[in-house]
Formats: sequence, structure tokens, C-alpha cells
Amino acid sequence: MLKLKPARRERLADVLYGQILEQITSGELVEGAKLPSEARICRDFQVSRPVVREALMRLQADGLVVSRQGVGTFVKSRPSTRLTDFAVSAEIASYLRAFEPRLALETESAGLAAMRRTRAQLNQIGHALSALESAFSRGETGWEEDFAFHLAVAEAAGNELFPRLLEELQDILAGSMRMALSLTQQGSDERRRRVLEEHRKIFAAISSQNADLARLYMRHHLTESRARITGTHGDL
Amino acid sequence: MLKLKPARRERLADVLYGQILEQITSGELVEGAKLPSEARICRDFQVSRPVVREALMRLQADGLVVSRQGVGTFVKSRPSTRLTDFAVSAEIASYLRAFEPRLALETESAGLAAMRRTRAQLNQIGHALSALESAFSRGETGWEEDFAFHLAVAEAAGNELFPRLLEELQDILAGSMRMALSLTQQGSDERRRRVLEEHRKIFAAISSQNADLARLYMRHHLTESRARITGTHGDL
Amino acid sequence: MLKLKPARRERLADVLYGQILEQITSGELVEGAKLPSEARICRDFQVSRPVVREALMRLQADGLVVSRQGVGTFVKSRPSTRLTDFAVSAEIASYLRAFEPRLALETESAGLAAMRRTRAQLNQIGHALSALESAFSRGETGWEEDFAFHLAVAEAAGNELFPRLLEELQDILAGSMRMALSLTQQGSDERRRRVLEEHRKIFAAISSQNADLARLYMRHHLTESRARITGTHGDL
Amino acid sequence: MLKLKPARRERLADVLYGQILEQITSGELVEGAKLPSEARICRDFQVSRPVVREALMRLQADGLVVSRQGVGTFVKSRPSTRLTDFAVSAEIASYLRAFEPRLALETESAGLAAMRRTRAQLNQIGHALSALESAFSRGETGWEEDFAFHLAVAEAAGNELFPRLLEELQDILAGSMRMALSLTQQGSDERRRRVLEEHRKIFAAISSQNADLARLYMRHHLTESRARITGTHGDL
Repeated sequence: MLKLKPARRERLADVLYGQILEQITSGELVEGAKLPSEARICRDFQVSRPVVREALMRLQADGLVVSRQGVGTFVKSRPSTRLTDFAVSAEIASYLRAFEPRLALETESAGLAAMRRTRAQLNQIGHALSALESAFSRGETGWEEDFAFHLAVAEAAGNELFPRLLEELQDILAGSMRMALSLTQQGSDERRRRVLEEHRKIFAAISSQNADLARLYMRHHLTESRARITGTHGDL
Repeated sequence: MLKLKPARRERLADVLYGQILEQITSGELVEGAKLPSEARICRDFQVSRPVVREALMRLQADGLVVSRQGVGTFVKSRPSTRLTDFAVSAEIASYLRAFEPRLALETESAGLAAMRRTRAQLNQIGHALSALESAFSRGETGWEEDFAFHLAVAEAAGNELFPRLLEELQDILAGSMRMALSLTQQGSDERRRRVLEEHRKIFAAISSQNADLARLYMRHHLTESRARITGTHGDL
Repeated sequence: MLKLKPARRERLADVLYGQILEQITSGELVEGAKLPSEARICRDFQVSRPVVREALMRLQADGLVVSRQGVGTFVKSRPSTRLTDFAVSAEIASYLRAFEPRLALETESAGLAAMRRTRAQLNQIGHALSALESAFSRGETGWEEDFAFHLAVAEAAGNELFPRLLEELQDILAGSMRMALSLTQQGSDERRRRVLEEHRKIFAAISSQNADLARLYMRHHLTESRARITGTHGDL
Repeated sequence: MLKLKPARRERLADVLYGQILEQITSGELVEGAKLPSEARICRDFQVSRPVVREALMRLQADGLVVSRQGVGTFVKSRPSTRLTDFAVSAEIASYLRAFEPRLALETESAGLAAMRRTRAQLNQIGHALSALESAFSRGETGWEEDFAFHLAVAEAAGNELFPRLLEELQDILAGSMRMALSLTQQGSDERRRRVLEEHRKIFAAISSQNADLARLYMRHHLTESRARITGTHGDL
């Protein structure tokens, strides 16, 4: 059974998302379990229909639940229980949400970086990539090196507003990267190889000044990072 | 002849951009005039080659100069002399640069708004649109109404980071909109009709929940707004 | 009342789309009229639910009907009655459908053309543009000149598969352009100005080798062309 | 030294591309070797400058050569010598070129398939995916199953023009897939796992009706397929 505490705070959809996520992660709601109807969640959680829809839509987008038209909504997969070792569920919702503006901003700045990067800016990105590899080989999470990599790409876009906006998101990004890379740290070797490979491809595309490729590989990397948090692809 | 004061500040490419823009706007550099070679500008302006390239590339992207391979760079068009009634050239460079992260962020938030907007959020966008129409009919620039429209779209994206990032850019956006709409205020009736029509199409696409259309019309509106500032399409 | 003949042919959704479009265009179904329920249309038209949904979704995407959740589907706007002077409704459905692969192919070829066009290919596009202007000033529909313009852009992409695929669609495109431009021919001066301006902007973007701009203006032009056929923006 | 036979056929840039590719693949031009100047290639190959530029630009886009401004063009990497076991170099150039319209068409049809696929169409895609897995486990190239998968996605887009255009490209696609999968057949287990995983992600995105994700994974799959042919990522 889904247990819900009536909501008080402003981003009600986030709180609801977090409560359901927590029960899926903890195993209270098992795979295949049916969620109550929208009407029932509205009543139990004491919010309006759009709030419930938004929370369910995000859970579905994250691959955690699946809706079958006219039948109901079911738990689809269970993210790593380790997820809650690294963050509380309210934070997790906020970390996942940060991927939306990141996808917009960083895809664009990767494309611009491919067109405009100076030799010095390219080296900066290369240094951050090497530092990330070293951190992984030392068994560290490497989240500071990861942030440095993304910031170096934003700086290479040749428009100071891109790094400025990324820094505005720094707190939320730092938490998000720390959580994602803590999972990776405890995951398989193959998982770490993939994370490095995704960064390497972004670097190579910017290096060879191919803007479309840089956009694609940045968008792919962010999408896979998000899927690694929600456990969509299993351990990879 | 192009006159250049050696640069001191940090964003050297901006300062150089601004100096050349000013001389084009003021008519010191007339249409068809040939700019000095990159090497010459490097020497006169006392900066490295990549700085000169970045400034020239932006002037070209703005449709102000044109490069002919192996021949040189020429003044292509002259933006409205009225431009400098509303802002100094250093500001103009910064306003134009703000369109790059806006294109990324606002295109994405328009698409998300089409998918997620509640009835109340749609009304908010509609109110801002009506207010912009009223401001125009009263002969005002309407820049506050314009900002309210774009903020309402960002809020309808259902992710509070989109309005937060737009507000982070508020100062620069306010200046940019004030300048753009001051030009429109003094421009033709047709120009004002176009500005309103572009906003109406964004609203209609979000209203009919068509995400691809909302993205297209937002991208188109921002691109045309930028072209109106640089005078690329003449008075329209 | 909506009258439906049971369907026999393969693309049932098209036939259903066509029958409803015809009744809206002819005025049998007036603005504001409520369509029967999905279940009722299934029964009357003797098809499954997905077929009905596809037809309704397209009518909605074309701005002809609007669905209100839990209430029903209503006729929203009536395309020009003149539409049926130029084509039967089954053809109209097929013309509208051609915009989907065109959006994909021509947006991409416009971007590649901006990067790769030779001087001779640019001239070819310019000649087609001038020919279209002349045809309009002689009061002709100019559909052959329009097709020549789009083919010249595809050829400038530097990959012979783009013009080959466009020629594979030639029959359907010829019909589509003839119908669209026949409406424009009988429309306002402003409408003709817009059509020319959209082509001019594509040419200018390819000329100045700005791939992102070329993609945007091609996408915008095709979207507006489609909206002119369905009457979404009124006479413009 | 680069040896060139003067060209006769129509797509001169392709022939030139093929001749250089062949010499890189065969090892006559080793990694790090400097190509002759553009002017020299023009003279030896008896073509105009734009033809040479197009061929070099494509070799660069394929990661086979790299240009250093003011220095020259150098051989960067050598694709698998096995490549020429499966196709002659003129065909290889044509196979690589087919990825451009495929990227446009198939990215769009994957997105539409996510929005419109019926249950039966989804099953069709799933069957093709299983058949591809079986073919791989039997040690076959699986190119017919691969083509069936891509065709099933195009059919699920709900617009018969998408499969029709893919079939128009059938000859060239069949050759391209046969060559690519022959390389994969002889490659590492990891390489086969990747190929299957890319197809699975496209299927999952269409299954969960996430259009943006379906577009991204299709674009990523085609980009990686192309890179596997040119050997850009080594054996993966």
C-alpha cells in the first residue's frame, strides 16, 4: 500500500515525487505493484489533479513507473537501494530536475565550444578529463573533476554567460554529481569505463571542431547520467 | 580607416567587437569598406589572433560584416543609427551575446511548457500577451510586459530552475529588451505587428500543447529579435 | 451530425481524416460543433480505436479540431473553402502528410547547403528565387519555381541522395505546392510577401554559410506553408 | 607519396575520397603522413579547388585525416584493413554518405514512432530486435534483421512516406549494413554487445513513448555505426 503524508510545501509535485520514489527505492512498493488511482492520490495527498499528474509523469519519464491506459500505473523498476545512501529523496528529485536546464545549456555550449574553443581552452578541457581518469583510478568519486570538465566546456563556448549560469546551478550540480559518481564508484568497472568514454567523446568532438557531434555526445552523456541515477539501464 | 584603442579589459573580443560596431553604426566605416587584415588588427589592438577572430566571427554572425576567402572582410550592412541612441556599444555587444543562452534555455522551456502547463500557467502567459498588446497600443516600449511573457513561459515549464536562470539574466535581459523595443517603438506599424504575432504564435503552440511547434516559434522569435537589433532584415 | 461511410482501404486513418476534413471544409460541421465520441466513430466507421485516435490526433495537430479532456472533441477552425477548389480531401491529407519527411530532409539539407554550397550552387538557388518572384508578379502560382528552389537547396547539400529523395516525392510535392500556391495566388498581397520573404531568408542564411540559421528558416518556412494550407493563421 | 589517377566520373569528390581512403586503408599512406597541398591535389587529380575541399572535409569529418591551419593535412587514423575485404572504396564512400539522409529521416521517424506506434507496430519492432539478437548468437552478420528493425521503426511513424523513402535507399543501405555488420561479426564480443544495446535503447524509448529519447538514441546509434565503419573509436 502507498502511504502518503499530506503536503505542505510549495513544490508539491516534488514532494509527492519524492515520497513515491522513497517507497520504491526502499522496497515498500515492489516491482509490479499498482499505484492507487489519481483521484485517490489527490484525496490522500490533499492536492489537485495537475500536481498528481506532474509527479506521475516524471516518475514515468524516469522509467520508475509505467502507465497502461485505462488500467492504471504500476511500479516498473527499482533504482539501486544504494541511491538513498547518498541523498534523501527530496534531494534526488531536485538533482534529477537539474538535468533539464543542463541538457539545454550544456548541449548548446558544447556545440559552440567546438566552433570557438582556443587551443588553451581545449587544453583546459583535456586537463579536467585526465584529472577525472586519475580520480577514478585512485578509487575516488571524482565529482570535482567532473564539474571542472563541464565548466571548462562552458568556458570554451566563448560567451561568459554559459559558465555563469552553470555556476548559478553549482550547489545543485555538485550534489547531483556527488550522488551519481558515488553510485558509479561502487558500481562495476564497465560502468566507470562508460563514464570516462562519454567524456572522452565530448572532448574529441570539441577537439575536431565538429559542432553537431559535440552536441550529440553531450546530450547523450547527460541522458545516460540521468539514467544511471534512476537505474534505468541496470548497473551500466 | 579603422581606428583602434589598445585594449585593457578582460573580454577583449567584446571590446574589439564594440569598437568596430560603433564605427559601423556611426558611419565612420561605410558599407563596402574593407577592414584591415587580421594581422594588422592584432598589432593595432595589441591582442592575439584568436581574440580578433572571435570578434570578426561575431560581427559576421550578426550580418554586419562579410568575409570573402582570400580577399578580406568587408562592412556589409549598417544597423539603425538609432541603436546608439539607446545603448553604448559595449552594452550592445553584451545584449547580443545574451541571445545565445536564451536560445538554449527558452526554446527548451517553451517545449516543456507545451507539455506541462496548467490552465493557470497558460492564463498567466495569456495575460502577459494582452498586456504587451496594450502597452504597444499606448505607444509604450512594453519591455516589462515582454519580460513578464518570457518569465511566464519559463514558469510553465514545470521546473523552477528555468525561471531562476532567466532571473539570473534579468539585468542583461531588461537592457536588451528595452533597447530592442525602443527601436520597435520608433519603427513601422508592420514591425510592431510582427513582434506581437511572434508572441501570439508561441502562446498558441503552448495552448495547443504542441511541443515541437512551441520550440520552433520561440527559436524563431529570438532569432528575429536579434536580427531586428542588428538591422539584418531592414526595418522589419 | 457527422456522417461516415465504412472504410475499406489500407490507410484507414487517412480516409477517416479525409472524411472529417471534407465535412469541416464544406461547412457541414460548423465551428464549435462536437464530434461523436471515439467509441461511436469506431462503430460507425468500423475501425479499431487506434485508427480513430490517429485521425483525431492529426486533425488536432492541424488546428482543425480541439480536444478537451473528459468533455470531447470540437471543430476549432474551418480551412478556406477554396481549399477544395484545388484538391479532393483524400489528396489534401496526403499533401499534409508530406510535410513530415520534408521537415526532416529539407531542414538537414538546408544546414548542409550552408556549409558546403559552391558558388555555382548558390547562384542556382538565387535564380530559382528570382524566378519565383517573377512568377508571383505575373500573377502565376509559381509552383514549378518553388519546386526548383527546394531542389536547388537539396543539390547544394553536396550529397546526391538529398535531391534523389526529394524527386522520389516529386508527385506528391508538386500537388502540394500547386494547391498551397493556388491559395496564395488568390490570397492577400501580404500573404505573397510572406512566402517570398521566407524563401529569401533561407537563401540569405545559405549565402552567409550559417547552418543553424538555414535549418531554422527552412523549418519555419515548411511549418508556415503547412499552416497556410490548413488555415491556422487565417489569411496569412 | 599520394598517387592519383585523373578523374572522369561525375561525383569527382567521391572518387577522390575513395582513392585517398584506399591508400590510407591499404597502409600506403601511414598515420602521420602529410597529404600534398590542396593546390597540388587539384593539379594531380585535375579538378577544381571545391572538389578537393569537399573530399578533404569528409575525410576529416570521418576522423581519417586532420587539418592543422597553415601547416597541412595529415593522416590521423587507419580504419580496419578488413574494411576493404567487404567493399571497394568507391562503395565505402557511398555507404558513408547514406548516413546523412538517414540521420535526418530516421531520427524523425523514431520520434514520431514513440508518439504514434500501435501495439502491433511495437511488437514488429520487438520481433526484429529478437531476430537480430538470434542472428548474432548464430554468428551471422544479421544485416537483414537490422534492415527489418529500421524499417519497422519507419512504419511505426504512422506516415507511409517514411518507409517508402527508406526503401528507396534499400540498395545502398543493404550494402552499408552488410559491410558494417561484417566488421562487427569479426570484431570483439563487446562490439556486438554495443550494437545490440543501441537497438534495445531505441526500442525501449519507443515503447515508453518518449519521443525526445527515441530521437536521441536513433541519432546516437547511426553516429556510432558510422564511426564503427571508419574505425574512429578503435574496435568498439
